[in-house]
Amino acid sequence: MKVLTFKIDDRERLGFLSADEKWIYTTESIGMEYRNMKELIRGISESEIQLAEYVASKPPYETETVRAIPLEDARILAPIPEPDQDIICLGVNYASHLEESREFLNDAYEKEQSWPVYFGKRVDRAWADNDEISSYPDLVDGLDYEAELAVILSKDARNVSESQVKDYIFGYTILNDISARNLQTRHGQWYFGKSLDGFCPMGPWIVTADEIAFPPRLAIQSFVNGELRQDASTGELIFGIARIISELSRGMTLRAGTIISTGTPAGAGVGFKPPRYLKKGDVVECRIEGIGTLHSRIV
Amino acid sequence: MKVLTFKIDDRERLGFLSADEKWIYTTESIGMEYRNMKELIRGISESEIQLAEYVASKPPYETETVRAIPLEDARILAPIPEPDQDIICLGVNYASHLEESREFLNDAYEKEQSWPVYFGKRVDRAWADNDEISSYPDLVDGLDYEAELAVILSKDARNVSESQVKDYIFGYTILNDISARNLQTRHGQWYFGKSLDGFCPMGPWIVTADEIAFPPRLAIQSFVNGELRQDASTGELIFGIARIISELSRGMTLRAGTIISTGTPAGAGVGFKPPRYLKKGDVVECRIEGIGTLHSRIV
Repeated sequence: MKVLTFKIDDRERLGFLSADEKWIYTTESIGMEYRNMKELIRGISESEIQLAEYVASKPPYETETVRAIPLEDARILAPIPEPDQDIICLGVNYASHLEESREFLNDAYEKEQSWPVYFGKRVDRAWADNDEISSYPDLVDGLDYEAELAVILSKDARNVSESQVKDYIFGYTILNDISARNLQTRHGQWYFGKSLDGFCPMGPWIVTADEIAFPPRLAIQSFVNGELRQDASTGELIFGIARIISELSRGMTLRAGTIISTGTPAGAGVGFKPPRYLKKGDVVECRIEGIGTLHSRIV
Repeated sequence: MKVLTFKIDDRERLGFLSADEKWIYTTESIGMEYRNMKELIRGISESEIQLAEYVASKPPYETETVRAIPLEDARILAPIPEPDQDIICLGVNYASHLEESREFLNDAYEKEQSWPVYFGKRVDRAWADNDEISSYPDLVDGLDYEAELAVILSKDARNVSESQVKDYIFGYTILNDISARNLQTRHGQWYFGKSLDGFCPMGPWIVTADEIAFPPRLAIQSFVNGELRQDASTGELIFGIARIISELSRGMTLRAGTIISTGTPAGAGVGFKPPRYLKKGDVVECRIEGIGTLHSRIV
């Protein structure tokens, strides 16, 4: 099932996407009172999921109460528009991207990685499908895209073993880990170069965990102006989702709604010689099998 | 004026500390309705500040409405107990700490720093004065303290020039940037080693900006079991507060309530040969002139 946050009549709402991806059924019209996606994730019951799946399976399904909105009439927002601190990112988690990034990365990453690289990304507000990203002409040199599979937790996680992790996953979405390569390098740690306003497009929706076998082995691709750049499988992660979440949960309480972005494969702009960075007017698409496509335009 | 978050009768409240630091006047008893420190920072007016200063100047001041609570009866909380994403930290921002850390840091930091090092610290909940910090015996090797001056913003900042920065400061507090040195190193980026639960003791309160000349040149010290370890002045920052906030605001919207921790001077455990890390039973005190002392016990 696909769950999304969207705007219509100038109000932020939650909904479920119909199987043919043409209609949205609002949560409120099927009797769910969640005010935002984090509340839904924390609160949704088995029977509510079943009800939503039943409704979503038969488009267009309208009754006196159930409201079906054409997808094209809604403005999709990021599934969790204000993730606060709840984004944790993985660096160099595909062998192919580690290989292509050696020149860019400093010595610390040249050796065989025996532990995951975790970093924080500050997100004032997550951008949505089709949102525009500033190129920051006076600040950024080396604006880059990174298509990533993001995992969203269903409940608070602390000291979770690897075998338990799959019971803590609410679903999956696409995250484009936009990066300013000059800022990543010159400020020592990656944080600032990963955290400018607009650098976290996410969506278009969350696919619930029941629809994707664990661990996910999904085709992941990115395109710039229609040209294929990244083309891999999420089955190639060096450090898998169970390892990552179990390891982090040994020291950190990961709250329901936490988003863990699992890293990007080869084909980011930094990997080309010379690098092929984004410029004004470019359109980036990140695509993951079974989830959808996330579009961003550079302005 | 000193503003604090505290707990009494099992409720979280806000208050102002009396000049003799023996009494707390609750905000609600002087007619302020803020539910938490972020709301207070965003909403407090000039006249409310004047009223609070008047009341706080004459201890113990009690009327039919104004409630004075003995400080010793309250449990102090971190001034902003749930900072969400609103903590940005500076690395190696004192020449003395850069010098003592050369062996620990990788090559990227060996050269003269011409740009500030920014990193994110995830804070599920900020610990308060006198709170206990786990030593994580199975996970952490090299538990360290870092006394730091933290700056708190009064309003949203975007594209603020260096000369404007002082108009964006609500006040100052003490932050102990607790660090797990083994995790900082083995995970490439510092994030995980800085972000375990309990790694952000903060407080004991916020001193408002009007009480401290800008830029602050305050004695900053730390003690472990009473032994002086760090002893410097916040006037020694390599990159000053105006530079930091102006630079970050060129790419990021910094919200009112954002906490910027400005880095630590020489004398952290990592700087000794051999290193002198924290162990179970240790008591750490971080002290900044004009603010106070922040105590933590390792358990």
